[in-house]
Amino acid sequence: MKVVKFGGSSLANGEQFKKVIAIVTAQPERQAVITSAPGKRFSDDIKVTDLLITYAERFLNYLDTTEVQAKIFDRYQEIAQTFELPAEGLTWLKKELQQLQERTYPSAEYLLAAFKAHGEYFNARLLTLILNHLGIKARFIDPRVVGLLVSSDPNDATVLPVTYENLARLDYADEKLIFPGFFGVTKEGEIATFSRGGSDITGAIVARGLNAELYENFTDVDAIYAANPKLVHDPYAVTKMTYREMRELSYAGFSVFHDEAIVPAIEGRVKINVKNTNHPERPGTMIIPYQEFTPITPITGISSAKHFSALYLHKFLLNKEVGFTLKILNILYKYGISYEHMPSGIDDLTIIFDNSQLTEAKKEAVSRDIRAVIQPDELRWIDDYALIMVVGEGMINRIGIMKDVILAISDHNINIHMINQGSSEVSIMLGTKSADADKAVKYIYEAFFEQK
Amino acid sequence: MKVVKFGGSSLANGEQFKKVIAIVTAQPERQAVITSAPGKRFSDDIKVTDLLITYAERFLNYLDTTEVQAKIFDRYQEIAQTFELPAEGLTWLKKELQQLQERTYPSAEYLLAAFKAHGEYFNARLLTLILNHLGIKARFIDPRVVGLLVSSDPNDATVLPVTYENLARLDYADEKLIFPGFFGVTKEGEIATFSRGGSDITGAIVARGLNAELYENFTDVDAIYAANPKLVHDPYAVTKMTYREMRELSYAGFSVFHDEAIVPAIEGRVKINVKNTNHPERPGTMIIPYQEFTPITPITGISSAKHFSALYLHKFLLNKEVGFTLKILNILYKYGISYEHMPSGIDDLTIIFDNSQLTEAKKEAVSRDIRAVIQPDELRWIDDYALIMVVGEGMINRIGIMKDVILAISDHNINIHMINQGSSEVSIMLGTKSADADKAVKYIYEAFFEQK
Repeated sequence: MKVVKFGGSSLANGEQFKKVIAIVTAQPERQAVITSAPGKRFSDDIKVTDLLITYAERFLNYLDTTEVQAKIFDRYQEIAQTFELPAEGLTWLKKELQQLQERTYPSAEYLLAAFKAHGEYFNARLLTLILNHLGIKARFIDPRVVGLLVSSDPNDATVLPVTYENLARLDYADEKLIFPGFFGVTKEGEIATFSRGGSDITGAIVARGLNAELYENFTDVDAIYAANPKLVHDPYAVTKMTYREMRELSYAGFSVFHDEAIVPAIEGRVKINVKNTNHPERPGTMIIPYQEFTPITPITGISSAKHFSALYLHKFLLNKEVGFTLKILNILYKYGISYEHMPSGIDDLTIIFDNSQLTEAKKEAVSRDIRAVIQPDELRWIDDYALIMVVGEGMINRIGIMKDVILAISDHNINIHMINQGSSEVSIMLGTKSADADKAVKYIYEAFFEQK
Repeated sequence: MKVVKFGGSSLANGEQFKKVIAIVTAQPERQAVITSAPGKRFSDDIKVTDLLITYAERFLNYLDTTEVQAKIFDRYQEIAQTFELPAEGLTWLKKELQQLQERTYPSAEYLLAAFKAHGEYFNARLLTLILNHLGIKARFIDPRVVGLLVSSDPNDATVLPVTYENLARLDYADEKLIFPGFFGVTKEGEIATFSRGGSDITGAIVARGLNAELYENFTDVDAIYAANPKLVHDPYAVTKMTYREMRELSYAGFSVFHDEAIVPAIEGRVKINVKNTNHPERPGTMIIPYQEFTPITPITGISSAKHFSALYLHKFLLNKEVGFTLKILNILYKYGISYEHMPSGIDDLTIIFDNSQLTEAKKEAVSRDIRAVIQPDELRWIDDYALIMVVGEGMINRIGIMKDVILAISDHNINIHMINQGSSEVSIMLGTKSADADKAVKYIYEAFFEQK
């Protein structure tokens, strides 16, 4: 059996629903379907999830919710009408939407989680209704009933292992199983949502729990590309990549989905196929365990991200100072800052941070503490730090790849902060000035994909 | 004024003493002289310091010391005879040598320190006597009298800051000041020796304390070379290098002297000139603060050392694990192990150790603890790890240097574990298989020094 997940844009309106239904019914093996909430139909549109957040906030602030409830209902009604569902077919939805504000919740956080989750919940029930209306056997699977159990973190839940046992016990014949994405149920019986990549993670959980042969992740792009199409004209579409290639590329900006969202599928060693709802006939990109194929190109992809900063430290005899790394880690810990990498020379240390970890005040505090504890000869922040990942399972002749990477960029006046090769078996990491990152990606792409 | 230090081979016999005296008297500025103990005169010879250690050990074991005392005395007498000192001129030395075993010491460690220190002590007094005998004004400076104060670690002492004030107060005219190297005095009045590079560090301390314009370090090589002469035929002699170049090169095997031994000179910003006692007319190598010259070559030197091992760890989502570095550092701390470098990828981490930090038992214990705490998908030791340092203040176009380094080695089937560029502004660090390190140094040397 296959698990099929559709993103918000794939379920944004009736026309998109038709594509989804065509995809789902094209193969009997496509049996488990994960829905997102209706996404944007046009660029200025508001996602149903955002409407639900507005609904929750207005309710919490004692403001009238009639209008926002109507907006939400209209989105589903529009879809229902495309399939000529009887008008009374959505009475339950209107009622449950109203009941959201009549229930009691353990906290405002749980209230918000429950409101948000209903975007997916309504869409899954609606899809089930439409399939049944079209004469297709389908059954709505409620996470609360099937036992998709999650931690008691209302808006940042993680799946509990017992979920896989519960899913394995699910009894079904040949009907489609329609799961709402994005949420599970806590031991206390409350709805809690995943933090990021909501429906993707539900798909991965279901794929593992039902021991699926394939997890098809339908989105609005044809494939994962070897480089960002905004930087490189018509980049090569990757047909196959391994889990760890995907992970290394995701780290620096590849964003078809959040890499952590598919961890359950990876744990279950389920292959993942990224496909386009609008062009389901295209092969998309297969993401597979790494033992299972022989790469044909040395490099699979190049990604870059500019949201980094670095702290450079120099002190004569630094590496003779016992425990200095520990001292620095304790300072970072004190200010609640996590770091990305810490390449060291003999008397030099660079600490690379994701900018989300830093504020000006934190940078000043860290500088002050490090000056007091380590007394460096030099302490300098590098604010415009970009990381570039050159990734490929085919990186067998590593020094040869390195040579080609260096040759690709060495004549283009690109400012390189750092080269880190060998930490990973499947990637080379470069640190550049942010202003040079896009150029570097372009030149490296050309060297590996256009000249060969 | 200049501080002049002579190594053990430069003071091994009367003929060498003549060279030393010629050097010292050639310039009135060469005023402070630091002596080592007499070294080897031929390859099977025994250094006086080692004879003194034997003397101490025999004494501690209640064995007869007559013979070893005689051997020690003979070494000094041979030197004295070269200069036709009167026979009774060394009566004091014979007496003090005997008195070494008649004194009381706080511990066997202090006893050993005092015995060892007398190799330098006797040589400094003897040199003073000979200079006076030759009609040259010279004065023996006893570290105990002048106040060369050190920590109370009998055989691993470090200098105390008050020493510099004491030396600054030293009153002298135009006479030569002859200091014995290798030892100082504790606050309790005991002799304590430095752990490594004994006379070098005394020279550096005196250079700083007397605010010398130059610290001339006389040894038995013409200069510091751009690469190990055992690996490269007739390597380029470096005429100038900066403190930090010296330090980066020393890290991986450059061993004219131990880099830490000259720290006091660096702290005092005293220039250091490494010269050859046997060819004092040759310029040697100047080691200077880094602001003071414009490099003419991009690379100053290449060094390598093979005494490293690495631990490779891989775990999916490793970098999302909060505090995992701290966990690993705590494990290392538990077993008293310090590490050299810790390059990281996204889901990979390599920890590089100096082999002196490891035993098979410690490796097993660390592996076991890391498996228990981090649960890595992969944990692997790489035992034959060499580090190569490519060093140069002239590394301005860093990506260009990197290109030349890579091109130099990429066609020679050299196995590269790691490339670390950018952590230091003046070096590139490569990790290779030990078996490939010598080849790599040779090819890199050729690329920078022979083809250009």
